Amino acid sequence: MSLIHPYNQAHLWLVSAGPGDPDLLTLKAVKALQQADVILHDSLVHQDVLLHAKAHCQVVCVGKRAGKESTPQEGIHELIRDAAMLGRQIVRLKGGDAMMFGRAGEEMAFAQSLGLSWTYVPGISTGTSLAGLAGIPLTLRGVASSVWMGTATDRHGRLAPDLMDALASSSTCVVFMGRRRIRDIASRLVHVGKAHTPVAVVSRGSLPAQRTRIMAASEWLRLPQMPPIEDPALLVIGDVVNHRFDAAKPESHPPHLPTKSFTDEYQVPHFPQGRATTNQRLRRV
Amino acid sequence: MSLIHPYNQAHLWLVSAGPGDPDLLTLKAVKALQQADVILHDSLVHQDVLLHAKAHCQVVCVGKRAGKESTPQEGIHELIRDAAMLGRQIVRLKGGDAMMFGRAGEEMAFAQSLGLSWTYVPGISTGTSLAGLAGIPLTLRGVASSVWMGTATDRHGRLAPDLMDALASSSTCVVFMGRRRIRDIASRLVHVGKAHTPVAVVSRGSLPAQRTRIMAASEWLRLPQMPPIEDPALLVIGDVVNHRFDAAKPESHPPHLPTKSFTDEYQVPHFPQGRATTNQRLRRV
Repeated sequence: MSLIHPYNQAHLWLVSAGPGDPDLLTLKAVKALQQADVILHDSLVHQDVLLHAKAHCQVVCVGKRAGKESTPQEGIHELIRDAAMLGRQIVRLKGGDAMMFGRAGEEMAFAQSLGLSWTYVPGISTGTSLAGLAGIPLTLRGVASSVWMGTATDRHGRLAPDLMDALASSSTCVVFMGRRRIRDIASRLVHVGKAHTPVAVVSRGSLPAQRTRIMAASEWLRLPQMPPIEDPALLVIGDVVNHRFDAAKPESHPPHLPTKSFTDEYQVPHFPQGRATTNQRLRRV
Repeated sequence: MSLIHPYNQAHLWLVSAGPGDPDLLTLKAVKALQQADVILHDSLVHQDVLLHAKAHCQVVCVGKRAGKESTPQEGIHELIRDAAMLGRQIVRLKGGDAMMFGRAGEEMAFAQSLGLSWTYVPGISTGTSLAGLAGIPLTLRGVASSVWMGTATDRHGRLAPDLMDALASSSTCVVFMGRRRIRDIASRLVHVGKAHTPVAVVSRGSLPAQRTRIMAASEWLRLPQMPPIEDPALLVIGDVVNHRFDAAKPESHPPHLPTKSFTDEYQVPHFPQGRATTNQRLRRV
């Protein structure tokens, strides 16, 4: 970043917050949050993660959840540009890993088009962590030696062709945003001769409310109606699900980890409710 | 964990250390390391990660690197059992994510067979993070909407059939432990009509020495001899590689992150060289 840079000291941090548990944030993400002037975060980011922000940081929720209003992508770009013109350290905070279906690519491309420098701070993807937290090994010798990860639907709202192929393969399949398509997926499994293949749904993964429901494809199809499943939910499909271990639920037997939160322990300044500007547009000078 | 448990207070923590950069450790992993009595770690774990250990922690390297000696899996199991009989908090520390090709499943199964309680602490997989750190989006609208992750070879040392299929699909392919099979993979790509598909090799990902080499499949095949590539190396294959962003190398423009390491800042006790028992067998009482 040269000194004649149009945005001077401004910088965009694309920070991944991990699957939910605020303790699954990385040290690097904590550092980025601690020095941020502006944080633009998704709805799924745990509130305790925002405790790492400094006192006068502007914290703006730009997230969307199914059925509720959100800031359109262009609005997020505008917030980034406005903050960049003020020379701010901007953190764009996303659940899971920003690069795994987090659409970080679009914000990177936007930063590049502005000439704004950026840094990607990786995090734990829900895709690689939730199976393990539910006691399911993603790969296991002699059962599955690879993992396919993708979304349930293509841009036309159909079951994605990639997923159709993956369901017929021997890879474990991890499906993002698939809650509403479980029956379609189960139907496809039956069609390719995998009626007995288990489909696990892990909802609210890594949080105390984490819940795992497991049924064979044919059983999901036979349900008179779908059970209520909380978002976010991730599907894990394949024979590895039959090799689930006990001791699955996080914190089901926490022996000696400090009960104080990490932030308490190290006296990271708490985020003062009154001072933060939440969900307000940034003001230009 | 009941009070009549044969191993009393003992517990096994299966901790993921992330792709290399010690700042990519999670807060939860730091907590687990801070309270550990025994740490059994792989070779690829960064030395600075071990700075989180307390003063009298026994730190044992059980890792293997290509061509060098390592502790066989049975030896690791013995160390775990011996430490469990002493009622220890045991951390088994693995590079990347312990569940993504980290063989954590085998150690979980061993712990279960002993009746020893365990906790999986997820971490950043090299598979989801290194592409992004090299500036490559794993998925991108209109280019690739899913990712396949697996190892290069099957148990017989042949190119894995899963991988053969994945290379012919539209998924981005991420290949673990594939450095020695680049030509075979390139040859397969040419065979399925993908001679122009780029193959990126990211070595020493997330570390200052990170390096990315990119060539089309046909170009890898035309090389008179393979360039030297440092381990660990990860392959990223697919058209997304052509959409690589600049600002790729980690820390190529670090604006305002504290230069002091996190451990310095918070005065986590440094690991005293003299006191640690390294690579020694644990003693039974």
